[in-house]
Amino acid sequence: MKEIYFVTGNENKYKEVCEILGKEIKRIELDLEEIQSDDPYKIAKKKVLEAYRILKKPVIVEDISLHIEALNGFPGPLIKFMRSSLKPEGIYQIMKSHKNKNTIARCVVACFDGKNINFFTGDIKGKIVAPKGKSKFGFDPIFQPNGKNKTFAQMGEEEKNKISHRSIAWRKVRDFLEKDK
Amino acid sequence: MKEIYFVTGNENKYKEVCEILGKEIKRIELDLEEIQSDDPYKIAKKKVLEAYRILKKPVIVEDISLHIEALNGFPGPLIKFMRSSLKPEGIYQIMKSHKNKNTIARCVVACFDGKNINFFTGDIKGKIVAPKGKSKFGFDPIFQPNGKNKTFAQMGEEEKNKISHRSIAWRKVRDFLEKDK
Repeated sequence: MKEIYFVTGNENKYKEVCEILGKEIKRIELDLEEIQSDDPYKIAKKKVLEAYRILKKPVIVEDISLHIEALNGFPGPLIKFMRSSLKPEGIYQIMKSHKNKNTIARCVVACFDGKNINFFTGDIKGKIVAPKGKSKFGFDPIFQPNGKNKTFAQMGEEEKNKISHRSIAWRKVRDFLEKDK
Repeated sequence: MKEIYFVTGNENKYKEVCEILGKEIKRIELDLEEIQSDDPYKIAKKKVLEAYRILKKPVIVEDISLHIEALNGFPGPLIKFMRSSLKPEGIYQIMKSHKNKNTIARCVVACFDGKNINFFTGDIKGKIVAPKGKSKFGFDPIFQPNGKNKTFAQMGEEEKNKISHRSIAWRKVRDFLEKDK
């Protein structure tokens, strides 16, 4: 795998990514502002270009979003603010009155080597359910993938990493970087 | 009033501000990204500095936020995304199950002359109610100021401009600019 830096300040996120890649990737913490948008690709693009401008080395960034069908895709990439204000319980409360609990959890990864930006998307469909399980991650206690009877927070790391939006996106990244060696 | 440029692409916002100031202010449309934050002052600060960097003349920017008590201040400055996804009706639906409908509508204006940033805040307390009235502005149909029995959308311009968060902030701006002549 080429020398490429994953830009994240989140230790849990970094560990999960290394787990999925099956090896350690270089990591750097940069204090990047993210732009306000409901489009995760726009946010990731701006972030990866800014990271490259600072570091001047190949960089990878990630954006996680939660697209709730009954809310017309809201909150999308703004999930982190909704989560910190309302907690998973509060998001579930909002969804209680909606019959349609369908939700897509999305991981968008953007790589930039100074010339080309490549995007990798991992989508997983599921439902918003009452909070179950303890979690290190944002919406894991209220997100139950379709066909499963457990939330992400109730799964072990291995079980979650087999199917998660993050793992789908990062496995594409792994294949891309392997090919590109 | 000194030569200062109000940065906005929103015609209705511009007209309302001129109405409040009692005169026309210069206007410029810049394609500025806003940063993701739940803090309107951070967003306004970044935006006014960026506008000055581009224009190299004194600039004014505005950020409108809606802080709903039962949602721990959410959505704040992210109201525009919540509004475009859910429409006023959808925001009201979320609030239906909450007894506490208290909300603050906030207008933060930031001026930068190349040396100092000055902030002016207009807050108005009110309640989220079922949508009433037609409106050009975001949350006007569901925001009812305390002590009134009409939403902002049901008021005429004159009536709204007497009490609105925008008018409170911009009257402070007017006084500041007059003093500074």
